[in-house]
Amino acid sequence: MKKILIIGTVAYDEIETTTGSSGKILGGAATYIGLSASLLNSKSSIISIVGGDFEYKNLKLLKLKGINTDSIEIVPKGKTFYWKGKYHKDWNKRDTLNTQLNVLADFNPAISEENKKAEIIVLGNLHPEIQNTVLDQVNVSEKCIILDTMNFWMDNALPELMKVIKRVDIIIINDEEALQLSKKDTLFAAANEILSFGPKQIVIKKGEHGAMLFDESQFFTVPAFPVKKVIDPTGAGDTFAGGFAGYLSQLDNINFEVMKLAVVHGTVMASFCVEGFGTSVMESLEKETTNNRLKEFKNFTRY
Amino acid sequence: MKKILIIGTVAYDEIETTTGSSGKILGGAATYIGLSASLLNSKSSIISIVGGDFEYKNLKLLKLKGINTDSIEIVPKGKTFYWKGKYHKDWNKRDTLNTQLNVLADFNPAISEENKKAEIIVLGNLHPEIQNTVLDQVNVSEKCIILDTMNFWMDNALPELMKVIKRVDIIIINDEEALQLSKKDTLFAAANEILSFGPKQIVIKKGEHGAMLFDESQFFTVPAFPVKKVIDPTGAGDTFAGGFAGYLSQLDNINFEVMKLAVVHGTVMASFCVEGFGTSVMESLEKETTNNRLKEFKNFTRY
Repeated sequence: MKKILIIGTVAYDEIETTTGSSGKILGGAATYIGLSASLLNSKSSIISIVGGDFEYKNLKLLKLKGINTDSIEIVPKGKTFYWKGKYHKDWNKRDTLNTQLNVLADFNPAISEENKKAEIIVLGNLHPEIQNTVLDQVNVSEKCIILDTMNFWMDNALPELMKVIKRVDIIIINDEEALQLSKKDTLFAAANEILSFGPKQIVIKKGEHGAMLFDESQFFTVPAFPVKKVIDPTGAGDTFAGGFAGYLSQLDNINFEVMKLAVVHGTVMASFCVEGFGTSVMESLEKETTNNRLKEFKNFTRY
Repeated sequence: MKKILIIGTVAYDEIETTTGSSGKILGGAATYIGLSASLLNSKSSIISIVGGDFEYKNLKLLKLKGINTDSIEIVPKGKTFYWKGKYHKDWNKRDTLNTQLNVLADFNPAISEENKKAEIIVLGNLHPEIQNTVLDQVNVSEKCIILDTMNFWMDNALPELMKVIKRVDIIIINDEEALQLSKKDTLFAAANEILSFGPKQIVIKKGEHGAMLFDESQFFTVPAFPVKKVIDPTGAGDTFAGGFAGYLSQLDNINFEVMKLAVVHGTVMASFCVEGFGTSVMESLEKETTNNRLKEFKNFTRY
């Protein structure tokens, strides 16, 4: 099993939807990626930063899932990154009500020798400058590097983001972001354009409409798992990335064929995430439940 | 091979898109269903009505595809049904600019003894009163009856439409229509509700996002074939229905497993339809081309 290094936020979120409010809960890209990957991988480490307000029970949760949290820096006098958002009836629309970078403003991760050995690196959604700092410290050509990012960085740090994109193997973004980043008007054209920036593969997530995987000459697509009732989509993309990376970490050889199954695993993991507020479903999810849903998904999609 | 009876419009359309204009061209639900089914079935008949203005070359086209046109009634002094529509940049939005029912206003189809033998009946999009008239003349319980309809009839002839729905085996509608008809807010809830109205199976088409198939206890979903450039979506739904019915007509036993493949065939056929204005692509489509795309689709979706 390959070791996975996850770089991203560990945070507190407050989420409002049309049906309810979460209160202050555990969040952050690295949290979701880690929880999701932990169902498929027992050798993952999170690199992140939190404040003195970060509760031990949250750290313990990650540890209990087998995630190495030694590289989650704790700044005793600082406060944990905080995000508050509100979703509309159309889940694709959300407003950010409050963002407090707090300790994240000075995050400058140093990768330990042990962590440098990881074969898979997941760059969770984070300032591309930090993502580049991480890549500067590892032997990029020897690793499978997976990048997750979002439109915020396309709007606010495009040159730095382009520098990261050039260095990664696989980029995972959603449909709107793919169109924005590529300045194209179809997902096929967008995928081709983004592949020309450097990555070998691109995964385009389409939310409830599934996901697509492209490389230079191949294409694969799956529908989403049909979730009966979405409660909160926060973290679904990160959870997808965690499932994707977690599945790849089990294999000796990473190629397009196995990436198809990685997309299926990401899709199924994300379907659990949205069934509750924040990390609630992922926190108590068991391997057997995910295996059953994978079987169900195959049943729904194979012909 | 089972005989397919297709009831629907044979019409003239004029279509405007953001990139071009079709001029007056052949259209109509039965035309699209017939052209699509003809690639999979050699025993189909169209029941429809046209005016004296209907050009022989259009009739000949259908005949050359092996479609029996003996039951397309020609009213010499009447005019063929005409529809003019305009699509927006978002293909899901279109305005009807002109509708002239013409001969369709008095369409009251009589089913010949020969046509009554058809094992599969496709009720193309048409006034549900006419669809009911057709069902009154056949032994409904012995046939596989497939209904295609649209929101216009939900708005304007709901009681008659509900009467048809109660009598059919399979209903094919799009996602918005499923929500409207069921008064539910998720596609799963909508499918369950509509199945409770009578049909044994429901296919929900989601345009570029694929299609779903449900029965009481089973579910199947496929992505759409990724069309590089959509030229005109007119007839895509009818073409789907034609491919769906055409595939089923080749089989002795119709069950959920083979219906999955029927959905795949419908999906692939519809992908050709949208690649040109009106029936242009379907008119010259060859079996080999459809087989190649079916293989390609399997390659894109199987894992």
